[in-house]
Amino acid sequence: MAFAPSVSNSITVRLELPARATAVGELSAAVEKEGGMVTAVDIAESGAERLRTDLTIATWGEEHAKQIVEAMRTVRGVEIGKVSDRTFLMHLGGKLSVEPKTPIRNRDDLSMIYTPGVARVCQAIVDNPEDARRLTIKRNTVAVVTDGTAVLGMGDIGPLAAMPVMEGKAALFKRFADVDAFPIVLDTKDADEIVRIVKAISPGFAGINLEDISAPRCFYIERRLREELDIPVFHDDQHGTAIVVLAALRNALRVVNKQLADVKIVLSGAGAAGSAILRLLLLAGATHVVVSDVHGILHSERTDIARGDNANMAWIASQTNRAGLRGTVQDALVGADVFIGVSAGGILSGDDVATMATDSIVFAMANPQPEVDPVDAAEHATVVATGRSDFANQINNVLVFPGVFRGLIDAQSEHITDEMLLAAAIALSDVVGEDERNPTYIIPSVFNPRVSKAVAEAVEKAVRAHDEKND
Amino acid sequence: MAFAPSVSNSITVRLELPARATAVGELSAAVEKEGGMVTAVDIAESGAERLRTDLTIATWGEEHAKQIVEAMRTVRGVEIGKVSDRTFLMHLGGKLSVEPKTPIRNRDDLSMIYTPGVARVCQAIVDNPEDARRLTIKRNTVAVVTDGTAVLGMGDIGPLAAMPVMEGKAALFKRFADVDAFPIVLDTKDADEIVRIVKAISPGFAGINLEDISAPRCFYIERRLREELDIPVFHDDQHGTAIVVLAALRNALRVVNKQLADVKIVLSGAGAAGSAILRLLLLAGATHVVVSDVHGILHSERTDIARGDNANMAWIASQTNRAGLRGTVQDALVGADVFIGVSAGGILSGDDVATMATDSIVFAMANPQPEVDPVDAAEHATVVATGRSDFANQINNVLVFPGVFRGLIDAQSEHITDEMLLAAAIALSDVVGEDERNPTYIIPSVFNPRVSKAVAEAVEKAVRAHDEKND
Repeated sequence: MAFAPSVSNSITVRLELPARATAVGELSAAVEKEGGMVTAVDIAESGAERLRTDLTIATWGEEHAKQIVEAMRTVRGVEIGKVSDRTFLMHLGGKLSVEPKTPIRNRDDLSMIYTPGVARVCQAIVDNPEDARRLTIKRNTVAVVTDGTAVLGMGDIGPLAAMPVMEGKAALFKRFADVDAFPIVLDTKDADEIVRIVKAISPGFAGINLEDISAPRCFYIERRLREELDIPVFHDDQHGTAIVVLAALRNALRVVNKQLADVKIVLSGAGAAGSAILRLLLLAGATHVVVSDVHGILHSERTDIARGDNANMAWIASQTNRAGLRGTVQDALVGADVFIGVSAGGILSGDDVATMATDSIVFAMANPQPEVDPVDAAEHATVVATGRSDFANQINNVLVFPGVFRGLIDAQSEHITDEMLLAAAIALSDVVGEDERNPTYIIPSVFNPRVSKAVAEAVEKAVRAHDEKND
Repeated sequence: MAFAPSVSNSITVRLELPARATAVGELSAAVEKEGGMVTAVDIAESGAERLRTDLTIATWGEEHAKQIVEAMRTVRGVEIGKVSDRTFLMHLGGKLSVEPKTPIRNRDDLSMIYTPGVARVCQAIVDNPEDARRLTIKRNTVAVVTDGTAVLGMGDIGPLAAMPVMEGKAALFKRFADVDAFPIVLDTKDADEIVRIVKAISPGFAGINLEDISAPRCFYIERRLREELDIPVFHDDQHGTAIVVLAALRNALRVVNKQLADVKIVLSGAGAAGSAILRLLLLAGATHVVVSDVHGILHSERTDIARGDNANMAWIASQTNRAGLRGTVQDALVGADVFIGVSAGGILSGDDVATMATDSIVFAMANPQPEVDPVDAAEHATVVATGRSDFANQINNVLVFPGVFRGLIDAQSEHITDEMLLAAAIALSDVVGEDERNPTYIIPSVFNPRVSKAVAEAVEKAVRAHDEKND
């Protein structure tokens, strides 16, 4: 699999070089010969004989960056100064600040924002608790909660090391949907304790976004919180992924002119994401789904499932595999129309994809290495998507969670239902117009300003429909 | 007690009035006749015959505001429009926002702030947990934690209604010391549960500010957290109040030329604030302190204390009242040099103050009504201070908590000691120069930019001294 050097591994090298016409060219050549990519040249200071310059270079990683810097040293007359890691620079000091929304200029402001004036605002909430959604940050604030047990592809790295991800998530909430979000990282893995803590801190929030909590604990925590809280609880690894997969699949099916109810779908992965994808696929009308995991195809007689250790696996087996298939994921793949992978890298080859039906669809979303090399897959499948940003059709949750919470908050929703997730998926897929849709464009860009608006409106509408039905 | 109408009870009245020269004057006269105070006149729209105007008026409260509006209706030709409460306007939508510190403009930014780049930052923290103070918001973030059981003078109003106060506190942290603070309001009153929750959420924070938790639970919670956490825990109602009282007292004693070790001090209030004030007074060198509460002077044989129900009361009795006084707070006051009240409004008269020693000092800090009318007290005492903003010498915790946490955070302190509180008090009192100090100026203004800097530097220095001693 040939990936380009990544911007996320960029370095900025401060250097001095002789003021000769070819110096920058020589440097760039040295960088490129080592496999690096110069992405920016900034002249910091220019003199008659020497230039002070910042060169920014995309690399494959830390070792590669060192090799590139060594190669740059060989250019005649160049002096290498400070080498900074651009990614670390962006995280320095943390990525969020908490800002007062009104200026505090004098004693009068103080007397209104704080004592004695604030007491009247407190009293108004005592008299009418619903006013908290008007008079406090509960209006617009979501807690991003994790215990750090399943962070990205890194596994159980603990709450402290999970902070950069949770802060990033909070930053994206603001950037894409103007939601205030704050990271709460928990130094406990006890599921009941997590439930108790989230319940206790919930009064100040309009919603809870669970994040990177390992399965099957995440199912239990989510279920309990949904039952016991009066604000919506969303587990992005499950529901965000499910929404964006269904949205992408709707457009992929339109490209190949097949119907969801008719296609044979193989879903690899029975964890948090896989289970949520399955539930949403079934709600949307899929009927032929086979799920596989590291032990092969799931069916009710499989030893581990028959033993009944895992209620979630038993539920999956009961809802899927009507044809009664047995064997490996490869066995399931023969003649299938759709492969959806949220499992592990490199479990399939191009030859496996070749056994699928004509006009097949492959979503290989394991990170960082997809289930099948997307280049190999594309030789046989009509539509290929991955979780990677350096390939077409990136399945990215950032498309979903900001808008979903914007809609939930605006509707002051007290819960979240599968119908709301389905509405979000339909809205997201419909952002891609008929004239835009093609095998390499089944999902809009994260930076398309219509995305979070469309998702938010659909969710808000679904909440209002739900509330009317239940009034 | 004659208080002026308060800005914190301001209303803004939109009205139309005839464009005659005397119209605004007639309106102002009507407002003033009712006891209101016009603080701003803004012409929103001006025509040949009519003016649309916003009149802002300080009032004594909601009933008073209604009377004023009725009086304004009687002015010939005036039409009253929307009446807004300025304090509520400032709280609308909440008082805080969570902002990303770096722009997210494109896919490259996204790949550095979030996946895949963020994984390297997480890994750095796995490898060296101390890096979290460099690479996450733990660098500069404090949790403002309450269970809503002792909010201002309002008592147990619960977590939701406590939010406006906690948000206000967080806003002040930013305004006065550039500390990021976030409110965590807890829907539980179980002290052990609160300890467990604060411990669990602590990884993301550099410090914990406990707020408005009722005594004696607050002592237990604070003690457990200080023992079990590796970040400083500050209970503003105790330690913030103690610091500002000691700072003000140092300057008051300078004004009357008495020494802390010599003066007789009567402290009214044995709750959270009273106990903390006592501890800091003793550490600073006070020797003659008598404490009283609603049942009178504390001594070891008092029935409730002898019974041993309350360890804190027993501790107070063992540390104070060397002369073995019995009776009421009035009995204690005879011949005393200093009265410090953190108890209840109106428990003393001017005549009681008259029984104190010459050049007496009275700090009457009960809110909203002081222990003694400050005007009456000033007839007999040389220095009078209250918690009110409409009187000289306001004892206000805002002078303290921002700078204390700035110092703790900058020194990356893992704890807080009484020596650090003492250092803060000394630094705060010394902000008032010898040439500025007088009976009506013993404490600087909250808006004096030297305040939080001086407090922060003193605390940081005390932390470093502590760390060196314990290395």
